Amino acid sequence: MKLYDFAPAPNPRRVRIFLAEKGITLPMVQVNLRANEQFAPAFRAVNADCTVPVLELDDGARIADVLAICVYFEALQPDPPLMGVGVQDRANVAAWQRRVERDGFLAVVEAFRNATPGFKGRALPGPDDYEQIPALAERGRARLGKFFGMMNACLADREFVAGKQYSIADITALVTVDFAGWIKLGIPGDCSHLRRWYDMVSARPSAKA
Amino acid sequence: MKLYDFAPAPNPRRVRIFLAEKGITLPMVQVNLRANEQFAPAFRAVNADCTVPVLELDDGARIADVLAICVYFEALQPDPPLMGVGVQDRANVAAWQRRVERDGFLAVVEAFRNATPGFKGRALPGPDDYEQIPALAERGRARLGKFFGMMNACLADREFVAGKQYSIADITALVTVDFAGWIKLGIPGDCSHLRRWYDMVSARPSAKA
Repeated sequence: MKLYDFAPAPNPRRVRIFLAEKGITLPMVQVNLRANEQFAPAFRAVNADCTVPVLELDDGARIADVLAICVYFEALQPDPPLMGVGVQDRANVAAWQRRVERDGFLAVVEAFRNATPGFKGRALPGPDDYEQIPALAERGRARLGKFFGMMNACLADREFVAGKQYSIADITALVTVDFAGWIKLGIPGDCSHLRRWYDMVSARPSAKA
Repeated sequence: MKLYDFAPAPNPRRVRIFLAEKGITLPMVQVNLRANEQFAPAFRAVNADCTVPVLELDDGARIADVLAICVYFEALQPDPPLMGVGVQDRANVAAWQRRVERDGFLAVVEAFRNATPGFKGRALPGPDDYEQIPALAERGRARLGKFFGMMNACLADREFVAGKQYSIADITALVTVDFAGWIKLGIPGDCSHLRRWYDMVSARPSAKA
């Protein structure tokens, strides 16, 4: 088994933190996205979608999606649980993970890729060329502002994003806050609950993954 | 337990088909999105995000996300399995569900909401107002064309989207194809594998849900 990774990129970091929390180590293969290695024939043969992370299993099968890779390891090694325990908690964690991804992580992706000169003509990940849409970059920044406020309110009365336990929703949220630094946005000064949570999850050893 | 629903809308239909496949029936509460009932105080108290579907449990807890609701029922009643069986299959189904949602379903959402006069000023679901972005509508249509081609290729050598078994990935894909009709796009004439699959999954009784 091995994981195709690119150390500076936010999406594979979500998997690395997930694995670190479970104490799983894997051989890593770096795919240098800054050198466009994801578009080279060698990597296209691994993932025609030209993205990392990709998990390659011993039988050669490949899983080329962040969440699906986490689903794999959660089923393979349930402890410590990162996707909820019991019927209702599993659903609750899934709902929060998706909300953080949609309203936070993807807002940063939109803001970053639609405004960064290096992504001109490549506003979406993947092999197809799409022009940048400046209005989408602007909307992404506005959405991220709303996201910080929503998260601050949700963390006022609980320890972690989905409740009492650290979960994959915290991982997505932590990576989102750090990724927001790429577009020069950070936790607003009046978001003390979000700041308290961020300092706590950042201090876990897994955050260095 | 009850489900807040709106019969004509694509997102709650995903849950209805999922429940029909499992043979689960629930009390339904219709929230008329065309009459803006989702923005009325009564429904904001149910879901501040102003979207359906929402599952309300007997203890009053609410799950306000399509996938999270499916996670709930998959854990509550595993048969028939719709999210994969075994470690690798669960990951594979999750990967396909997410790919279909991202490249298909959300492409239609973008194309529809950014070009339909009734959604002026409400280009994103939820309580916040965002202006339509015409370039995003156009990009959504282009992405959907790519999606149809990708799906046709993937269905050339297998029966269902994620392999040999009907799954939640088929549900998302079926709803995507029908939703595409709202923007006057349909399965291209040269996509015979996608057409074969569509006719098959549409003939299942659950498709009427």
